[in-house]
Amino acid sequence: MSLDEFALIERIARRTRARADIVLGIGDDAALLQPASGQQLAVTADTLNAGVHFPAESAPADIGWKALATNLSDLAAMGATPAWCTLSLSLPQAEGDWLDAFADGLFALADASGIAVVGGDTTRGPLSISITAIGQLPAAQALRRDGARVGDDIWISGHPGEAAGALRLWQQGQLDVRVAAADADCERLRQRLQRPMPRLPLGLALRGLAHAAADVSDGLLADLGHIASRSGVAAVVQADALPLSSALCDALGTDVARDCALRGGDDYELCFTAAPERRQALHALSSTLALPLTRIGVIAGGRGVRCEGDAGGERAAGYRHFTA
Amino acid sequence: MSLDEFALIERIARRTRARADIVLGIGDDAALLQPASGQQLAVTADTLNAGVHFPAESAPADIGWKALATNLSDLAAMGATPAWCTLSLSLPQAEGDWLDAFADGLFALADASGIAVVGGDTTRGPLSISITAIGQLPAAQALRRDGARVGDDIWISGHPGEAAGALRLWQQGQLDVRVAAADADCERLRQRLQRPMPRLPLGLALRGLAHAAADVSDGLLADLGHIASRSGVAAVVQADALPLSSALCDALGTDVARDCALRGGDDYELCFTAAPERRQALHALSSTLALPLTRIGVIAGGRGVRCEGDAGGERAAGYRHFTA
Repeated sequence: MSLDEFALIERIARRTRARADIVLGIGDDAALLQPASGQQLAVTADTLNAGVHFPAESAPADIGWKALATNLSDLAAMGATPAWCTLSLSLPQAEGDWLDAFADGLFALADASGIAVVGGDTTRGPLSISITAIGQLPAAQALRRDGARVGDDIWISGHPGEAAGALRLWQQGQLDVRVAAADADCERLRQRLQRPMPRLPLGLALRGLAHAAADVSDGLLADLGHIASRSGVAAVVQADALPLSSALCDALGTDVARDCALRGGDDYELCFTAAPERRQALHALSSTLALPLTRIGVIAGGRGVRCEGDAGGERAAGYRHFTA
Repeated sequence: MSLDEFALIERIARRTRARADIVLGIGDDAALLQPASGQQLAVTADTLNAGVHFPAESAPADIGWKALATNLSDLAAMGATPAWCTLSLSLPQAEGDWLDAFADGLFALADASGIAVVGGDTTRGPLSISITAIGQLPAAQALRRDGARVGDDIWISGHPGEAAGALRLWQQGQLDVRVAAADADCERLRQRLQRPMPRLPLGLALRGLAHAAADVSDGLLADLGHIASRSGVAAVVQADALPLSSALCDALGTDVARDCALRGGDDYELCFTAAPERRQALHALSSTLALPLTRIGVIAGGRGVRCEGDAGGERAAGYRHFTA
């Protein structure tokens, strides 16, 4: 079924959750929102283009999930609580079935995270999804990139590299990103690529614990590099401390797994730094959240990022659009 | 010169204005903003795709201006003061010269309106610009679409139809959208299409004066239809009351001019309703702002939009993407 612009918008609008702080939702020139008293706003925007940020053949529900997940991950990395977002959707055709499936994935994550879609638009064009997400947090409690201190431990959540591993398997024709894989390890990797889970509870819990944080979207070394440069320090990672999953190592071998963990993007884990005195608290937090938190290095004086014990250490760190 | 993603972002970031309420701008996972105490937020998102929302051959500075103008127009239509925006830019190539010219146009309007770019991203893809703009306004003072009352006058700012007139001239090969036209009338129309001026001072001044408002992006009858349906009333427009500009009539004839004014989009004038007791105040406001404000009809009981004295009245009202 082909839909016009207003039918498309209506189809999104009726799916979104209610929030008491939405004075006026979709349907006027702009949404009206009542921010919580005394809170700051965290605002982030990410665009996903078919064939660039996800395999064009991806299931629409996975596309919807991931488009929101990349934005929520940025809010998690700031320690913010998700509140509202806008959704700008460019579609080659206006297919009701496609849109409903896309909305299934997007709203599964939106409802789980408490965020409401308050505006946006639909346009005709190559498949592209732009989301701007707004979160709230108390003043002076944000997890910034510029707070790392010499002597801090460097931590990573989860098992970095799994999304990049799935991408390699897909590029090698060994994984169908559209359907569940028969092999449990491959399916685990596929889920990490297509349905990344933004680490929102971790981000909230790290307020007051971490000195600096970033989400791993461009690759661990690249994103850690952002922390180091913004903080005016150096980051030293121990390659053998990386929490490589057995699923990733079994599927691609340890060397490739390590490369995925260091340079692959799209994991949306949190990389953060904290004082050594926080180790016990962070191990306890790991248990509470049932989420691995692993010390992988230290913040030192100087500049840049160094990975010790990594044979591929001279290669470029992370993925950049437009790099020649 | 070809730039990578981070160089592109840096090139935008260094152009944006400072605001005291920006705790942390571009460069972290999200921007941190301090909303004004007691204010509500108005949030809107609009995407412009090359070839759909503007002629692909448009000058990059015009594209930058218009992408922001469409969003600021939505804030104007709510009576909000612009504060912050995000910019998501998809580019086929990363050309520094193109980006600088685009930024020239975007920041000319951003600086004039007080809005700061606080985030966004750049991706490789067909030329597309998504902006989410955030404004602020006091509680209960927003100009909503659902407040029109039976007996209200219907007003329009400026000279609707000029942008649509320019589009027709371009489609007929009679106007080059890239360069100033030799003919003053044609140049006036070209400016209205390529450099629409969001009616922000009018929107602010209409707080407490207007009962309902919308900006004219889809076409006067279509956008007035949104006011009528949201308010549960009918709108009756007098075709011969339309403030057709002589530039438009001279270029295209009165019949086409009227059609452009009623059904053409992209004008970004404000259409609003107000009690008849407000006529004197609105005429005074028109003088103050040096902006024509014209009564073009009345709000009546019933439903829908009717245009009296318009031969083309049976035709579809306004432009919709995806309409079969």
